[in-house]
Amino acid sequence: MKFTIKDKDSRGRTGVFETEHGVVKTPNLMPVIHPRKQRIDINKFGANIVITNAYLIYKDEELRNRALNNGIHDLINFNGTIMTDSGSYQLSVYGDVEVSNREIIEFQEAIKTDIGTSLDIPTPPYSTRTKTEKDLEITLNRAKEGKEIRDNREMKMLLNSVVQGSTFSDLRAKSAKDLSALDCDLYPIGAVVPLMESYCYSDLVDVVMNSVSNLPDSKPKHLMGAGHPMLFALAVAMGCDLFDSAAYILYAENDRFLTIRGTYKLENLHEMPCSCEVCSKYTPDDLRAMDKKERTKLIAEHNLHISFAEIRVIRQAIIDGNLMELVEERSRAHPTLLDAYRKLGDYSNDLEVYEPRVKKSAFFYTGSESLKRPEVTRHLIKLKKMDKKRDLAILPPYRKPYSNHLPDNSGDFYVYGDEMEIDLDETDFMVVDIPFCLVPLNVDEAYPLSQHESPKIKDVDGIEFVKNFLLDFAHNYSQILIHSHVAEDYQLGLYRKHPQSNIINFKINDQDKIKAIADYQFGNGAGDSLFNGEIEIEKSKKTGKIRHVYCDGELVANMRASDSYFVLAKEGARRLHKAIKFPKNRVVVTADSEPFTREGRSVFSKFVLDCDSNIRAKDEVLIVNENDDLLAFGRSLLNHNEMMNFNVGQAIKNRKGYL
Amino acid sequence: MKFTIKDKDSRGRTGVFETEHGVVKTPNLMPVIHPRKQRIDINKFGANIVITNAYLIYKDEELRNRALNNGIHDLINFNGTIMTDSGSYQLSVYGDVEVSNREIIEFQEAIKTDIGTSLDIPTPPYSTRTKTEKDLEITLNRAKEGKEIRDNREMKMLLNSVVQGSTFSDLRAKSAKDLSALDCDLYPIGAVVPLMESYCYSDLVDVVMNSVSNLPDSKPKHLMGAGHPMLFALAVAMGCDLFDSAAYILYAENDRFLTIRGTYKLENLHEMPCSCEVCSKYTPDDLRAMDKKERTKLIAEHNLHISFAEIRVIRQAIIDGNLMELVEERSRAHPTLLDAYRKLGDYSNDLEVYEPRVKKSAFFYTGSESLKRPEVTRHLIKLKKMDKKRDLAILPPYRKPYSNHLPDNSGDFYVYGDEMEIDLDETDFMVVDIPFCLVPLNVDEAYPLSQHESPKIKDVDGIEFVKNFLLDFAHNYSQILIHSHVAEDYQLGLYRKHPQSNIINFKINDQDKIKAIADYQFGNGAGDSLFNGEIEIEKSKKTGKIRHVYCDGELVANMRASDSYFVLAKEGARRLHKAIKFPKNRVVVTADSEPFTREGRSVFSKFVLDCDSNIRAKDEVLIVNENDDLLAFGRSLLNHNEMMNFNVGQAIKNRKGYL
Repeated sequence: MKFTIKDKDSRGRTGVFETEHGVVKTPNLMPVIHPRKQRIDINKFGANIVITNAYLIYKDEELRNRALNNGIHDLINFNGTIMTDSGSYQLSVYGDVEVSNREIIEFQEAIKTDIGTSLDIPTPPYSTRTKTEKDLEITLNRAKEGKEIRDNREMKMLLNSVVQGSTFSDLRAKSAKDLSALDCDLYPIGAVVPLMESYCYSDLVDVVMNSVSNLPDSKPKHLMGAGHPMLFALAVAMGCDLFDSAAYILYAENDRFLTIRGTYKLENLHEMPCSCEVCSKYTPDDLRAMDKKERTKLIAEHNLHISFAEIRVIRQAIIDGNLMELVEERSRAHPTLLDAYRKLGDYSNDLEVYEPRVKKSAFFYTGSESLKRPEVTRHLIKLKKMDKKRDLAILPPYRKPYSNHLPDNSGDFYVYGDEMEIDLDETDFMVVDIPFCLVPLNVDEAYPLSQHESPKIKDVDGIEFVKNFLLDFAHNYSQILIHSHVAEDYQLGLYRKHPQSNIINFKINDQDKIKAIADYQFGNGAGDSLFNGEIEIEKSKKTGKIRHVYCDGELVANMRASDSYFVLAKEGARRLHKAIKFPKNRVVVTADSEPFTREGRSVFSKFVLDCDSNIRAKDEVLIVNENDDLLAFGRSLLNHNEMMNFNVGQAIKNRKGYL
Repeated sequence: MKFTIKDKDSRGRTGVFETEHGVVKTPNLMPVIHPRKQRIDINKFGANIVITNAYLIYKDEELRNRALNNGIHDLINFNGTIMTDSGSYQLSVYGDVEVSNREIIEFQEAIKTDIGTSLDIPTPPYSTRTKTEKDLEITLNRAKEGKEIRDNREMKMLLNSVVQGSTFSDLRAKSAKDLSALDCDLYPIGAVVPLMESYCYSDLVDVVMNSVSNLPDSKPKHLMGAGHPMLFALAVAMGCDLFDSAAYILYAENDRFLTIRGTYKLENLHEMPCSCEVCSKYTPDDLRAMDKKERTKLIAEHNLHISFAEIRVIRQAIIDGNLMELVEERSRAHPTLLDAYRKLGDYSNDLEVYEPRVKKSAFFYTGSESLKRPEVTRHLIKLKKMDKKRDLAILPPYRKPYSNHLPDNSGDFYVYGDEMEIDLDETDFMVVDIPFCLVPLNVDEAYPLSQHESPKIKDVDGIEFVKNFLLDFAHNYSQILIHSHVAEDYQLGLYRKHPQSNIINFKINDQDKIKAIADYQFGNGAGDSLFNGEIEIEKSKKTGKIRHVYCDGELVANMRASDSYFVLAKEGARRLHKAIKFPKNRVVVTADSEPFTREGRSVFSKFVLDCDSNIRAKDEVLIVNENDDLLAFGRSLLNHNEMMNFNVGQAIKNRKGYL
């Protein structure tokens, strides 16, 4: 299974994998094809992967013979990738199926399925622990058996192994871990349909997060039975790559329209619900007047149009880096969806690991739920780790970047903590900010501290969030000096005014700034190591922004205009490598890839031996060999986990190598 | 101008008006047609109203002659309703136009425009007060002149009079009031484009609300220059009925796609952004490879598809009663839009007046902004007005309806206020609830107290909102008894446990319940007046819900299953009329309509002489003559303001008359 990923946003990613019948882009939707009753020609919707049921074909003599003779692609008239299910659904409904695991796997191969599935036991949500554990053991054994059959027969067919474990977090995790060890090709997450049908989306978040976080990053994950487009964005943000939709036709048969906002019954429609061809051409009255067959076909077409459009919107959002903004929008469709999104906030530390360091899009605060976004979590971790001076001065926010729009001092500074004589050299200056709490003025241009937008009218959640962080963070300092506007806005109470209030004043110092940004980007101490000797800072004539930093006449680093992060130059990478100890900022590559890396070729995941666990996608990283010799430096395309886990695809875009 | 409205939701409404060229449904979008450069055939998008510029035609000799000879419908090849602008835009750009107000109005009539416009002065946002006042005087005088010309010549052409006043709330209000007095046909709200272009949506809310709340409800309002579908839902919720879009083509010429989430540039698109025919058929690469002309046409078509789809979605939302939920979703597209929606919260009292009493859809809490929804505001007003007992017992919420799912008393009651001996007959029982704060158990089935959904994971805004209300509301009682779960959830602090804690116990009493609901619906005292004598309550055998209430053997009222409000029977209306004093719950109709009303015919707005200002749409109302003789009773379709203001259309659906 060669699966590679390209763009990333939280746990969502765009990727491609190949099968015997072509390339499949992810995220993607697999329309369910009924081997006998199919009436919609799926080809015209641009689907390049579909799913059908091998057990239904197996059970039907005529279908079975046709499939065995001519292959499944001929049977269902589809030339793209075909995935087949194994009869587990029938097993869950009827309690038993007339086929063994081995038989159905071999049958799937015989009919030339591209992706087959072993016969798992779908344990419903809220089952007893005993039953769940028992079922899980069978599922795991069948997955093992499947893997053995596949390996022994050297099948070209790719193999699904389904994660089960009902609603027990630890059992989902165990199931995922056990299956990961088997190294299957794709990982469906099973038995979640009842959760979706009963609007238990919040429990769905727990099930999915406990599954995906224990599955290999390098394999596509399929949220089985999730066919309602309302859920796609949330599921993709949690790391799901594939969906299947029987919903498009089942809903159509009941005169129901799928939309991003929920489901509409034709009988309640006065206006058509989307912009698709069907909705533009017909009115609800037109459809009601049609015969059932024609109507069902048109509604199914609408359902496919809207579902594929949502897949496209999600892919674009991942590329743009605003998938979470999309999820926040979608989660307003129903309070239970909002509940699910709020629940996802509990997994912010996990999502932070998958969040690229910088993105094209600004961070949008679109409700108090945005406080739990991984970008916020990441900044607060950074703040806590940051080197601190004796005092902290907190200023109100004006326009961004804050350091260019400081208050004209029409306000006093109040002392919290011990009153001491002001020492500006021993004072950190930060601006209070929703949602980032405190933004150090020296790094305020770095992503996302200037690249975010929040409504002017604040919510109480935001105020309390910032206030609580601030009260806790204050313990790091001997003296806290708070601008009167901040004290008022956050109702901090007015303590005494500092007698030297009028001399408290932040002055922009470019040398301090470049060092602070380097520390923020690469870790404490990076600034001093990178920038010493005679420092020369070159700015853009047009924007006044820092562009290049030279030390003793040599270029050390360039600052990227869009996000104010440094792109190292050769000398910069050398300095960083010398000053910051192994394994920080490093990716260790194999000896055989060393020559290519030194020549400046990109690093593929399969050559990565080790990697600093703090590395995120879009970090500037040092590439070293096992002796920590600096071979090159570049930009990571994946995070630590992914680099270690993937065996195909690029891991680092090499900027320059050392020959 | 005959404008009638049908469905209502907050200030949004679906309506129709007629012109010489057909019926126009509202809300609606008027694509801007360029009299010379038009390349998109608008007819295929189902537009039934368009807008074009009379001044451009007037200035161009060839166009002018063609329009004068063959009429404007022939000129722009459109047989539906045509609105024309007067050259104000050119005036605002070039500072002057070569036409007088009289000339352009007479020209518009001469070319057979359906809706013409007088030559107003568009004063930009943030202008000086002096300039704004000066401009406004000219605008008003020209509107007056226009009205005179129209009346004197007995024109069939309908007339727009544009509200101006820049960003001064009082001047917008004055402008709207002055123009209202003129009784024009349609009211555009002008000079808002710069606010939209600079994302000042929050100021736009002030401008629109100060305009609409001073304009007649009975006339369509047009948000001039608002062509981005992202804004439509918010604008409709504020009472705007018409939009115009030049955006569809202007954006297309710059390779920009309009969407509900904002604007996409083709150069940044990897996937097509919607489900329309264009987006389903082509890829961004296909479009990039096309010649400019063909590409512009296709993008313009997408822009129209998505814009009209949004208009349809909005109409459906009004009919379903979930327009605000739609606005809440749409407001997540950008923090400045969220800011605008939060600003709209300041107008909750105004919106409450336009909010129907009951709706088909449940109330969805989709973020802390929902706390300011008119339904919440209304309930809190009701709570404050409600008759109160000596004590208040506050219980935690379980499932809805709360009165059917009371706690099993595994918790104590704590005393806040003076400790007194428990008297269950002197105790109001309420459940604490987000967002409705307190839900009296006797009325908990009434809309929307059971018909709402909130996420289980609470936000701090909601908790603080409820807590603040509760602390304030407590002053109405001598003794407050709070269930320990509530005290914990809302961090009320634990006071002392009441020694009689174990006897505090709410028992459902159907007689109390029907009286409480009647009071909630019709005002204090209604319950006792309606239900006295020997009360017999008939319940549904299937659901156990109250269906009919008889007193002394006579049917007094029926309870509607969907929202638990009373529908009066003949005897009920008689009792209510007798007990509750004029003008409460009354609509006074003209003497000439009395016979029809008594016969049970519906009441048209033009017959309404007076009306209780507390009447909302979908209220059960008493219909009386000027002597307060009871003629009939029915269901209001409009609120007080609308009944008084409209001269066409139904005001009350008569349930039964008294012959």
